[in-house]
Amino acid sequence: MKTVSENRSFGGTQGVYTHASDACGCDMTFGLFLPEEAEDGPVPLLWYLSGLTCTHENAMTKAGAQSWCAEHGIAIVFPDTSPRGEDVADDEAYDLGKGAGFYVNATQDPWAKHFKMWDYITDELPRVLGDTFAVDMGRQSITGHSMGGHGALTIAMHHPDRFRSVSAFAPIANPTESDWGKKQFKAYLGEADTEAWKAHDSALLMAERGFSGPVLIDQGDSDNFLDLLKPEALAEAMAAKRQDGIFRMQKGYDHSYFFISTFMEDHVTFHAEALYS
Amino acid sequence: MKTVSENRSFGGTQGVYTHASDACGCDMTFGLFLPEEAEDGPVPLLWYLSGLTCTHENAMTKAGAQSWCAEHGIAIVFPDTSPRGEDVADDEAYDLGKGAGFYVNATQDPWAKHFKMWDYITDELPRVLGDTFAVDMGRQSITGHSMGGHGALTIAMHHPDRFRSVSAFAPIANPTESDWGKKQFKAYLGEADTEAWKAHDSALLMAERGFSGPVLIDQGDSDNFLDLLKPEALAEAMAAKRQDGIFRMQKGYDHSYFFISTFMEDHVTFHAEALYS
Repeated sequence: MKTVSENRSFGGTQGVYTHASDACGCDMTFGLFLPEEAEDGPVPLLWYLSGLTCTHENAMTKAGAQSWCAEHGIAIVFPDTSPRGEDVADDEAYDLGKGAGFYVNATQDPWAKHFKMWDYITDELPRVLGDTFAVDMGRQSITGHSMGGHGALTIAMHHPDRFRSVSAFAPIANPTESDWGKKQFKAYLGEADTEAWKAHDSALLMAERGFSGPVLIDQGDSDNFLDLLKPEALAEAMAAKRQDGIFRMQKGYDHSYFFISTFMEDHVTFHAEALYS
Repeated sequence: MKTVSENRSFGGTQGVYTHASDACGCDMTFGLFLPEEAEDGPVPLLWYLSGLTCTHENAMTKAGAQSWCAEHGIAIVFPDTSPRGEDVADDEAYDLGKGAGFYVNATQDPWAKHFKMWDYITDELPRVLGDTFAVDMGRQSITGHSMGGHGALTIAMHHPDRFRSVSAFAPIANPTESDWGKKQFKAYLGEADTEAWKAHDSALLMAERGFSGPVLIDQGDSDNFLDLLKPEALAEAMAAKRQDGIFRMQKGYDHSYFFISTFMEDHVTFHAEALYS
C-alpha cells in the first residue's frame, strides 16, 4: 500500500492510496476520507461508486461529501471505476474499457483478464480497508452516481447483510434495456449469458428481491441521459416491491456534480440515520 | 350558510359550516380551519379531500393538520365526500353512494341527480369559500387520502393554473384498473364512457399530462389496500413523465390516520413552500 497523498479535510484526513490488486491484476488507486473520530476507533463506512470516465478523484474533489461525512463521523471511500495500466485492454469509446468497468466481472476477451470490478469492490477492497484503516466493516452503506449508482444498487441488493442503506444519484437503472448496459454486458459478459445480465440490472433486481434496508434515489429531470438511465423502470419496481424507499425527481437538475453536490447532504444524512440506528 | 360550530384551535379557528349546494342539490357540510393570520387578510388555502366512508369530520379531528397549517399561516378546508340527505341515492356497500362520491360528476341513474362532487369541489365550494372567508384563491394547493388522494391528484392535473402543488397519502392511483374505481366508474359514469374513466385516473393523467407544480406522494408498505391502490402505476408514470416530485414508500405504515398524521407535517411544509414561493 502506497500513500499517494494525505490532506487535512474537515478535521479529518482525505487520503489517496495505491495498492496491488489481485482481483484486477494491476495497481488500483482509491480515495478515503477519515473523519476526526477515526483517531479514536473504527467509524462507519460509506462507499461512493463513480460513473463513466471517472477515476477515484472526481467525486473526491467535486461531490462535496466530506463536510457531511465529517459532521456525522463517517468515512467515505472513492474507488476507481476500472482497472488501469498500459497492459489493460481499452476501447476508443468513453463507455467501454478504462473508466467504464460497470462493476461486473468480465468473462469475455479481451476484458476478462483485468476487468473484475465486482470482485474488487465487493471482496478485495473491503478486506484492504478493514485491515488497514479505522473503519467499522459491520456498519457499511453505499451510494453512487450514474454507472456508480448502478453499481451501488446492484451490489447492495446482492449483499443485503452487508449494507444498511443504499442510495443513488441518477443511476443507470435498467441496463439490460439501455445502450448504457447492452453494449457493455455484451462485451464483458457475452451475448448469451442473459442470467448474468439480469444479475446486474437494478430494476430487475428490485422487482425480484428488493433491498433489506432503506433506499434513496435522486434523479434530475433535466438530465441529458434520461433515456439511457430509465428511472421509470426503477421507480415502478420500487413501488411494486413496496420497497422502503424514496424516489425523488429533482426539477431542473442535470447529470453533473452540481446535481450530486446539491443533494449530497441529504444522502449522507440518510445513510447516517441507518448507520447509527 | 349556517355555522355549525367554531372552536379556537392553534391560535386560529376551526369552523364547521353547512350550505345549500346547487351542484349536489342538497345541503353540504365542510370544515375550515383559519389560522390567526386570516384576521389580518386572506391567507393561502390547502384542500384536504377525504377517503371512502369519511365525512368532513374525520380528517378535521384526526389528521393533525391544524398545528402545521397554523405554523405556516395556511387555511385548510375539509369537504364532505358525497351528497347527503334522505332523498340522496345510496348503496349497501361502503364504497358506493354516500361517503363514496369519488370526486366525479355522475351521469348515470340513480346517481346523476346528486352525485356531482367534481363540480362541487372544483367550482361551487371554491366560490363559496372565496366569497365568505379570508382565503386567497390565488394561492391554493391540494392534498387528500385514498379516494381523496385520487381526487386531489385528478383535480390538480385538470387545474394546473389553480393549484401550486399537490400531494397525496396512499391515493387510489390507477382506478381504471382497480376494484376501487371500476365499480364506481361503471355506476357513476357508465360502462361505455371510457374517456370519462381515463379523465379520472391519476396514473393515466400523470402519463399523459403530468402536473405543473411539485408532487409529493406517501404510501405505507403495510397498507392493507395496496392491491387496490396500485401505487406502482403512479410511481412509474411520475418517473416516466419526469414529474417534479417525490414518491415515498413508508416502511411499516398502514392506511390509517396514524399514517396520515405522522407525515402531515411534511405535506403541509411541502405545500407551504409552494404557496409562499
